[in-house]
Amino acid sequence: MSSEPAPLLALDLTGTFAFGLNGALTAVRAARLDVVGVVVLGMITALGGGFIRDVLMDSLPPATLLDWRYYTLALVGGLIAFALSRRLRRIETAIVVFDAIGLSAFAVIGASKAQDSGLGVVPSVLLGVVTAVGGGTIRDTLVGRIPSVLRSGLYAVPALVAAAMTVAAIEWGVYGLPAGLGAATACFLIRMLGVRFGLNAPEPPETRRSRGPRGTGA
Amino acid sequence: MSSEPAPLLALDLTGTFAFGLNGALTAVRAARLDVVGVVVLGMITALGGGFIRDVLMDSLPPATLLDWRYYTLALVGGLIAFALSRRLRRIETAIVVFDAIGLSAFAVIGASKAQDSGLGVVPSVLLGVVTAVGGGTIRDTLVGRIPSVLRSGLYAVPALVAAAMTVAAIEWGVYGLPAGLGAATACFLIRMLGVRFGLNAPEPPETRRSRGPRGTGA
Amino acid sequence: MSSEPAPLLALDLTGTFAFGLNGALTAVRAARLDVVGVVVLGMITALGGGFIRDVLMDSLPPATLLDWRYYTLALVGGLIAFALSRRLRRIETAIVVFDAIGLSAFAVIGASKAQDSGLGVVPSVLLGVVTAVGGGTIRDTLVGRIPSVLRSGLYAVPALVAAAMTVAAIEWGVYGLPAGLGAATACFLIRMLGVRFGLNAPEPPETRRSRGPRGTGA
Repeated sequence: MSSEPAPLLALDLTGTFAFGLNGALTAVRAARLDVVGVVVLGMITALGGGFIRDVLMDSLPPATLLDWRYYTLALVGGLIAFALSRRLRRIETAIVVFDAIGLSAFAVIGASKAQDSGLGVVPSVLLGVVTAVGGGTIRDTLVGRIPSVLRSGLYAVPALVAAAMTVAAIEWGVYGLPAGLGAATACFLIRMLGVRFGLNAPEPPETRRSRGPRGTGA
Repeated sequence: MSSEPAPLLALDLTGTFAFGLNGALTAVRAARLDVVGVVVLGMITALGGGFIRDVLMDSLPPATLLDWRYYTLALVGGLIAFALSRRLRRIETAIVVFDAIGLSAFAVIGASKAQDSGLGVVPSVLLGVVTAVGGGTIRDTLVGRIPSVLRSGLYAVPALVAAAMTVAAIEWGVYGLPAGLGAATACFLIRMLGVRFGLNAPEPPETRRSRGPRGTGA
Repeated sequence: MSSEPAPLLALDLTGTFAFGLNGALTAVRAARLDVVGVVVLGMITALGGGFIRDVLMDSLPPATLLDWRYYTLALVGGLIAFALSRRLRRIETAIVVFDAIGLSAFAVIGASKAQDSGLGVVPSVLLGVVTAVGGGTIRDTLVGRIPSVLRSGLYAVPALVAAAMTVAAIEWGVYGLPAGLGAATACFLIRMLGVRFGLNAPEPPETRRSRGPRGTGA
């Protein structure tokens, strides 16, 4: 009932750091902001999903605002990304990979915290997805892009899989580091396969007719 | 003090379903997203206004996250809209009508729940408006459009009328299904008349001078 | 521990009124909305930052929703801005100045309320910044612009300075009207100097190489 066991705390902090890097690199890439803008977008991306989760599950003030490790990691991630952005040859790849790491970690942690707070199975799975996609959705909205969660079917789906695996593991009494890492890994692999092969969920019939099945991209 | 009486619950669920359809059709129309994006936008549109209301009136976790009927209806609305989007000849009309239904239902329910929670007259009316326009505002922001509540004067105003009628009915002790339906119907009619005749509230003098009175559209 | 002393309440109300004017003028300038859209954007800008602060520090329902002075001032600011928008020759200047006033007042009040609610030093400073930049960020997002807090380094930084000065004054037991006004004045001056001289924080190396040091503007 208290907080995450240590290995899952590590997963949470990893996700925070990865989203801090990702948000800051997105800022450099999409909007070429100055150092403050880059770091602010990194912190919003890293902390946003957890804020929304904590608001919805009535766990306020949010843990990530009270615990210095979260906002410090988000800040450091943003600063590192700002400093390294010139040297990163494949900045797009880095953005996608860090985003997938954050997505995977937060889907597991979000679902697990929601279960911990006494929510039922479906709300817990939904909150896992919201935690995973929340920060990136705010990130994309702030820089004027349609959010990944709407553009790419294989963004919400892997988060849903990981959140469902986490809740199932808790319900069956087998939740721990192996189960958490397994769920996160499943999410990460599905997401990266989707990106690699340009997979998407089915498009609406209207789109298919008028623009062909691969029309929207991801 | 507990929950809505059955007929008003029906109004709430109707609004949720209508916004689920509306959000999903907007996704098909505006951004041609895949099935996941379409359903996600439907659910966000359907549940977003109630989430904001429940956060502001400190009723967390939100009722719509805990009660399976809400998120299921939002999901089903999204799936139906996705499946039917090809057959819908007048998709724009459907979008506008479903939006007006959701707006009307949520203005009444939002104001009534706020009064129920002990808020005063003005905050209750404001929360009714916020509930009504909240989901659509998130929807428009996510697909990169200026929200209806800003673009069209006759969007916030009918919601305000319905919320004020609801709060007045409660204050006068005559609130029930007839009053709730009456307020919702008033909102729906004002909104649809505004859409039909392209009515808008007055524009700023500067705009009128430089672009003529009908310059901005709705 | 209760509410702000009278002079600080005056600072809070001043910020609310300034942001109401600013949001409404932004609506006239950026999107040429009708009177409802203009007033709605003014109210969202004026009340948004405080809403986010009150949600994150678990002080719900938000004070600005319960206290008629806040929403009335926000509404009146929006109406005045709508009425005067034609006569204002230098509307851009007015927008920037009102924004700086709101930013300065809210950074102080936000940090002070967060400290009051028992949060630590760093979370209080962060919440001061969030209060200051929150309303403007929602405003910019709704009209489709990249938020000031991301575009201009000297937007978050002056808010951070004022919030830090406020928290320091509270910690040292010297917080009161002079300290609050001093912190707000410092924020205002830094912000206006940044606008006047086009100052920005350093840009990422990549940008500097490809577009020159002043490439992004503010």
